[in-house]
Amino acid sequence: MKLNFSKMHGLGNDFMVIDGVRQTVALSHQQIAQLGHRQFGIGFDQLLLVEASTTPGIDFRYRIFNCDGSEVEQCGNGSRCFARFVVEQGLTDKTEIAVETAKGVIYPRLELDGNVTVNMGTPRFAPEDIPFIAPNEAMIDPLIVDGQVYDISVVSMGNPHAVQVVESVDTAPVALHGALIENHPRFPQKVNAGFMQILSRNEIRLRVFERAAGETLACGTGACAAVVAGIRRGLLDATVIVHTRGGDLTISWAGDTHPVLMTGPAVTVFAGTIEV
Amino acid sequence: MKLNFSKMHGLGNDFMVIDGVRQTVALSHQQIAQLGHRQFGIGFDQLLLVEASTTPGIDFRYRIFNCDGSEVEQCGNGSRCFARFVVEQGLTDKTEIAVETAKGVIYPRLELDGNVTVNMGTPRFAPEDIPFIAPNEAMIDPLIVDGQVYDISVVSMGNPHAVQVVESVDTAPVALHGALIENHPRFPQKVNAGFMQILSRNEIRLRVFERAAGETLACGTGACAAVVAGIRRGLLDATVIVHTRGGDLTISWAGDTHPVLMTGPAVTVFAGTIEV
Repeated sequence: MKLNFSKMHGLGNDFMVIDGVRQTVALSHQQIAQLGHRQFGIGFDQLLLVEASTTPGIDFRYRIFNCDGSEVEQCGNGSRCFARFVVEQGLTDKTEIAVETAKGVIYPRLELDGNVTVNMGTPRFAPEDIPFIAPNEAMIDPLIVDGQVYDISVVSMGNPHAVQVVESVDTAPVALHGALIENHPRFPQKVNAGFMQILSRNEIRLRVFERAAGETLACGTGACAAVVAGIRRGLLDATVIVHTRGGDLTISWAGDTHPVLMTGPAVTVFAGTIEV
Repeated sequence: MKLNFSKMHGLGNDFMVIDGVRQTVALSHQQIAQLGHRQFGIGFDQLLLVEASTTPGIDFRYRIFNCDGSEVEQCGNGSRCFARFVVEQGLTDKTEIAVETAKGVIYPRLELDGNVTVNMGTPRFAPEDIPFIAPNEAMIDPLIVDGQVYDISVVSMGNPHAVQVVESVDTAPVALHGALIENHPRFPQKVNAGFMQILSRNEIRLRVFERAAGETLACGTGACAAVVAGIRRGLLDATVIVHTRGGDLTISWAGDTHPVLMTGPAVTVFAGTIEV
């Protein structure tokens, strides 16, 4: 089977993107692992498979797979690449696209400058929604890590985040404390650990230690969680530029039950053909 | 500029291969670095640029670049990929190809099974040719590493190698001792450290700690050096299968001033197009 694909990235989170609308695609876990290998295959963080939807009013559906073949529910960087891909490939002439994912329908919007805005859903704070072991919901929780107390804010963006404010992301012990926070017993399903340096009310720097992945170049849901935490603490305004090691995101949140909007780049690196 | 390329690998040593015969290719160091990035670019260990030769009797010339844009003189895995590429791309219908490299003319030969045989040149043993600080040439030299004496054989295959026989490559302290041997003061230009486990007179297992790179999946010149050292020590016959973590090579050496022949796989993974 000959497969056409695009290699894309959003802030360094990279994807093999396959058009499953005009091609028939059936890949085993083993084939996905082979494709994902950076020397023996194409290499990617995730594989993104675009398919037609049979639901009225829905343009597409997509599925995201890790290199081991397991399916991913939510990926902000991936949904930006998806939107750019379907427009570039001529699969749609819409710029706001209704797409079914494993987590429900999302509506990524291609901006005039090529960036993509994604509705990332409403943040949740109740301990049982994180999940987080705590007597009640709080803006700031003290977490004891390595004998020291850290003031964390816990936020679910569909996945759990523990965000703390640091003096400087350059000197923050992200690897060491990230792993300790990730595996802290108060997070029964582990947690993504965010380290945020506040530059102004509209600008932060962020590093995130991701569950099961370690520090990554950029974490879309981590950026949302950090800005939401900063807004709730009264440190940030409603629209914030987030500088990550992979590039910049703009996060907007009007508070309460409003959704978080994330705007950022999606880049097509090259087009390829592979025999599978 | 739109560039067509192939992504290939030889035993997991991976290459972006560009046809510079039918395309005009001029890449800066910075562009090569960008192309070599595994998230933001295509990702490769080396870039291999195939060009036409103006020398009578020579079919092509090729150049190999590291990700940082620096040029590499010699690469066994790369020359196998080169031979397969020019045949697959229809640039020649020969199966033994004369090609100029930075180190001189080589004649890789495409076998019927798709493997490629490369003449890797004649091994040298004189201390000044390695270079190695020693009173005279020896089959085995004692090297003091970390207070212990290791019996190494030093061989130049165009680059310096120090090979030792170990009980098992699985338990050999490749990372620790590899780094100590690499930087041993008796090797003024450092050295590649090989750890060879002898299975029979025709079969070895090998791990190599490469200069400035650490342990790699497979090192072509390291496989040649190990077999040559084993033959000189009287432990191996003239043709030996070498098992590396990236796959198998067959190395033949008739001794003395005969050249070392290396046969191994070259795999085309995918074809791509990128805007540079």
